[in-house]
Amino acid sequence: MTRKRKGESGSDEMLLATLAAAGSTVSSDELDEVLAGVAAAPPGHNPLAWTVLVAAAAGSDLKDQLRSAHDRAVAARNDGLDRAGMDPARLAALRAELARLGLDGFIVPRGDEHLGEYVPRRAERLAWLTGFTGTAGTAVVLGERAVLFVDGRYTLEAEAQVDGALIERKHLIETPPEGWLASNLAKDQKLGYDPWLHTEKEIKDLARACTNAGAELIAVDANPIDRIWQNQPPPPIAPVVAHDESFAGESSAAKRARLADKIAELAADTAVVIKPDSLAWLLNVRGGDVPFTPLALGFALADASGRVEVFMDPRTLAPGLAGWLGNEVTVRPRDAFDEALDRLGSEDRKVLVDPAGAPARVFTRLRNAGAKLVEGADPCVRMKACKNEGELGGARAAHRRDGVAMARFLAWIGREAPQGALTEMGAVERLEALRAEDALFRGPAFATIAGAGPNGAIVHYRVSERTNRRLETGSLFLIDSGGQYLDGTTDVTRTLAVGEPSAEMRERFTRVLRGNIALATLAFPKGTVGAQIDAIARRHLWDAGLDYDHGTGHGVGSYLGVHEGPQRIAKVYQKVPLEHGMIVSEEPGYYKAGAYGIRTENLLVVRERPMAEGAERAMLAFEVLTLVPIDLSLVEAALLDAEEIAWLNAYHARVAEEIGPSLDSETRAWLERATRAL
Amino acid sequence: MTRKRKGESGSDEMLLATLAAAGSTVSSDELDEVLAGVAAAPPGHNPLAWTVLVAAAAGSDLKDQLRSAHDRAVAARNDGLDRAGMDPARLAALRAELARLGLDGFIVPRGDEHLGEYVPRRAERLAWLTGFTGTAGTAVVLGERAVLFVDGRYTLEAEAQVDGALIERKHLIETPPEGWLASNLAKDQKLGYDPWLHTEKEIKDLARACTNAGAELIAVDANPIDRIWQNQPPPPIAPVVAHDESFAGESSAAKRARLADKIAELAADTAVVIKPDSLAWLLNVRGGDVPFTPLALGFALADASGRVEVFMDPRTLAPGLAGWLGNEVTVRPRDAFDEALDRLGSEDRKVLVDPAGAPARVFTRLRNAGAKLVEGADPCVRMKACKNEGELGGARAAHRRDGVAMARFLAWIGREAPQGALTEMGAVERLEALRAEDALFRGPAFATIAGAGPNGAIVHYRVSERTNRRLETGSLFLIDSGGQYLDGTTDVTRTLAVGEPSAEMRERFTRVLRGNIALATLAFPKGTVGAQIDAIARRHLWDAGLDYDHGTGHGVGSYLGVHEGPQRIAKVYQKVPLEHGMIVSEEPGYYKAGAYGIRTENLLVVRERPMAEGAERAMLAFEVLTLVPIDLSLVEAALLDAEEIAWLNAYHARVAEEIGPSLDSETRAWLERATRAL
Repeated sequence: MTRKRKGESGSDEMLLATLAAAGSTVSSDELDEVLAGVAAAPPGHNPLAWTVLVAAAAGSDLKDQLRSAHDRAVAARNDGLDRAGMDPARLAALRAELARLGLDGFIVPRGDEHLGEYVPRRAERLAWLTGFTGTAGTAVVLGERAVLFVDGRYTLEAEAQVDGALIERKHLIETPPEGWLASNLAKDQKLGYDPWLHTEKEIKDLARACTNAGAELIAVDANPIDRIWQNQPPPPIAPVVAHDESFAGESSAAKRARLADKIAELAADTAVVIKPDSLAWLLNVRGGDVPFTPLALGFALADASGRVEVFMDPRTLAPGLAGWLGNEVTVRPRDAFDEALDRLGSEDRKVLVDPAGAPARVFTRLRNAGAKLVEGADPCVRMKACKNEGELGGARAAHRRDGVAMARFLAWIGREAPQGALTEMGAVERLEALRAEDALFRGPAFATIAGAGPNGAIVHYRVSERTNRRLETGSLFLIDSGGQYLDGTTDVTRTLAVGEPSAEMRERFTRVLRGNIALATLAFPKGTVGAQIDAIARRHLWDAGLDYDHGTGHGVGSYLGVHEGPQRIAKVYQKVPLEHGMIVSEEPGYYKAGAYGIRTENLLVVRERPMAEGAERAMLAFEVLTLVPIDLSLVEAALLDAEEIAWLNAYHARVAEEIGPSLDSETRAWLERATRAL
Repeated sequence: MTRKRKGESGSDEMLLATLAAAGSTVSSDELDEVLAGVAAAPPGHNPLAWTVLVAAAAGSDLKDQLRSAHDRAVAARNDGLDRAGMDPARLAALRAELARLGLDGFIVPRGDEHLGEYVPRRAERLAWLTGFTGTAGTAVVLGERAVLFVDGRYTLEAEAQVDGALIERKHLIETPPEGWLASNLAKDQKLGYDPWLHTEKEIKDLARACTNAGAELIAVDANPIDRIWQNQPPPPIAPVVAHDESFAGESSAAKRARLADKIAELAADTAVVIKPDSLAWLLNVRGGDVPFTPLALGFALADASGRVEVFMDPRTLAPGLAGWLGNEVTVRPRDAFDEALDRLGSEDRKVLVDPAGAPARVFTRLRNAGAKLVEGADPCVRMKACKNEGELGGARAAHRRDGVAMARFLAWIGREAPQGALTEMGAVERLEALRAEDALFRGPAFATIAGAGPNGAIVHYRVSERTNRRLETGSLFLIDSGGQYLDGTTDVTRTLAVGEPSAEMRERFTRVLRGNIALATLAFPKGTVGAQIDAIARRHLWDAGLDYDHGTGHGVGSYLGVHEGPQRIAKVYQKVPLEHGMIVSEEPGYYKAGAYGIRTENLLVVRERPMAEGAERAMLAFEVLTLVPIDLSLVEAALLDAEEIAWLNAYHARVAEEIGPSLDSETRAWLERATRAL
């Protein structure tokens, strides 16, 4: 991080004086560091939220000055991430650094120490090196060759962003890095990796690949990219705030007591918490360190007596938070985590840690310190996945308000699209603005997918100036979006006909819809995993020789990650069963490359079903959370059976009843037509 | 084995003279050993088939003498297996032997060196020790305690057969032996096991359990039960005969060439074949060493050049078989297997062997000899599972003839049941007799399950004198049976109403039937595994809060095992996908304890479906093999949708068309009523 010299900027002196007048004791250096950290965090829904970290209460003049200082820090960021495409000089610099370290190659995954989906700017090493900005991928850089591995979602994006002459592109699933390394590393070559950025399990697989090639896998002490990345952003700074118990539905103390029981059940003394969403859930706090998910990046050690030691930048704690967390929760700097792991070893503790979820570095450190490892999943993951009644009440409320925003949006599309000027970007902006009118809205839950015509067939399409399309008559428009609300996270996809859809579009849309209905109405016994019921949503497509190349559903958090494990509904087997209180999406689709895409997505809650008459076993079933009309102009009623028509009519009647009263009259009139009975 | 002295029996001298006159050179000792071996094999469909092993051609006088000699050998068997219930003296003898060996305990699984479902008498150690005769279970014998672990199918059987005061009974799945050992072994105790009777994987799990308890798991050189079991049967002797290529559909040479390619693909030199059904498939031979499945027990080593070394009792080879096998197949005694494994080590071979399918003993021997292990499944298993067109043609023909026998049986039941005297045992005998009229029939494929009334609710019920019930008016009769025919293996379950069924019976039968139809009509993409489609057969039961506690379907062999892997359709995940040519059962059911059982089972073939118009992806679908009417008096047509009724009518029309012409007029008249359109 570059540091300007003191007094370089007159405006900073004025700001410091204003801060001091407001009772703040922040120094010039401290302010600069906070500003750099804030500039390294995503902007967030309220761009002034961070100011509490330097002045608990700020008047409008101070706020204006802080806003300007922040704008300057953002403008001065110069971390090289805003450049489109790749800079070959960076690859050359990395190779030089590797030579200096005596390494023949290095693995660059897309990820940070917490191994989640979204990362702060500082951890965007893969994007900085290769220009590839997808949320999943891995590069291997050798002396003469470099390869980027991305999955099917990102093939097109990687082709557009990465110069194939310098970096080859491979399919992450079909040609996984392990296989490629086993046949492309030479004997005695040394391949480096950053042990903070890979799970223990990944490293075992990579080490086997290296051994097969007669090569060696070597952990580096410090990531070589951090040495060559000029102006690499510092760790992000965003305020960590309490998540009110009225939303969380359970106190942190109660959660910690339940976690302590689980730790004891597993015959461990201490659990290592790596996932920031586990931490946010456990402590009932939310942060703003990464895009789209309100995470505060930190590690924790939770013990079997209910105490939690948190390793997190103390400057990020909103005023009063430390006290609110209570005596059982201690916050220490991130740097102290290593020593804490060592202490677990010297105290001969039995430590619960997840080989598939924790960095290899944590395992090495614990082993070297002599700790006894109990390998197992982070118990918070499953506890968090099963929402309590408070969270479910919040989810229902959030979905009603989200449904209102979506109804206004769809009614607007219905008016605007026929004019011919509406674009994907225009739609995305409008939808976000409508959601933002809600007092509890805190930002989009992910980058909205708004695919008009052929763009709808790109499953993880993300609109840009280059690809932006108009909504044309006779085409379909697919919009997949969600909101982070204090009381819940939403995720909904609707496909809209612009003008008159073709018979084929209606037929395929109806097959997709039959899958939605079949899954939404399914009852299933406890112990059922998602892979067992995934086919229920696909069979009407399979009948016609069609399918979709993505999962049917993912878990969803409660004002947390829109993609949350462990549950999922997909072809891929995942051993954790669906349980009462889990929220999952169901989003079957159909994609005709170069023509159109169809997807209908609702969120569902897994619920224990009351015992029906004659029933012998307790069954689980789904409650639909999403309250957004399904475009009837795309439904071919002749292809639905009587039960399916009854379901669709009942769903629409419920949508009309639950969101109708909150709508303006124009939208309400639209809603009446949109939810008419078939 | 006890041996009578030479000349002890006058009749043997006469027999030897008759044999010599017929050109046989068998000595008195040799004859005695063969007779003992034949008596240790199951009786088989043709009780004189074994005589070719001592006299290639025998006149009727010689045959009569051989039959008498065989009868005497069976009568003299005295191996203690025909005693019902347990003999506590055996447990005491085992404990004394363990003390002599310095062991604190021993594990007694139900299985032999080939680790399959059916075993020869010699390997019935668990039954001999505990009295428990189920096909799956494990006992652990310690100094003071002994425990028998059986799964839910056998809970009742174990209670009836085993004295709980001497041997505790536990649930194999809920309280697996590993967990029990971990908490019940004392520190420094030594637990013995026979490394021929456990897979490498099982031993790893058991060893971990012992380590957790501070105890030690020790492989014994010889099974202590074999030392204390007086008159333990010798290895079985039954003729190994060629399986005609018109049934096998592919020459052994062609199969061996394909296997050689697979071995080379896996970068191995040699594959260890442990499963006798793999061996039977690979060599196109069939034997008679175990009940219900025409297996010849033996091991084999197949190499990447197409050569196969077989380790099998050479006396069991039918005349001419060695020559028929050709120069690429060498048959050596079973004893030579150990040395052959050592040779693989000394020749530095890369050996493909399955940790989940081969005895731990094979791994130890190979490792000690210095062989390089390539861990992976026996390739024969998957190759065998995908039937060729010749086998499928045979399966269709066998199912037509089996359908004829079943139609005659069902028509007979229809006439007899109302008289009130018909019992489960009477039905089983009649059905087997009807099947036996077919020239290609070679015996039942498994012990017929014939459950009248409440016995139908016992999923793996096996009728005995003690449990035999009459078919009563107002009850259901469930019959699950199958035949081994030279051209295919059948397995069919039908549930019949005796008199007027109740509304509940009809409703539940119809839910089960809807599951059959849903699965039979499913199309699914390549790569789909059984666990993904199992729910398709269950959802109509789930709807009503019902379910069945067994898999939906198992693989079926071609004149081989009626239970054959790797494919299955079940809740339990199994990673091998369903492939073109695989035969699977589909057998959803419903069981009301103490009242009745319902199951409808057809065999299906997985087939590539022709591309439909508009289809984008190749799909697999099922062809129904079984041709047996479904009892229409149990079908509640109002609960079926139009497509389901159309399927049932089309199925019945096909049954009538395919088997009607082969029936006598009385049965044909019954068939016409039984297959009438709804």
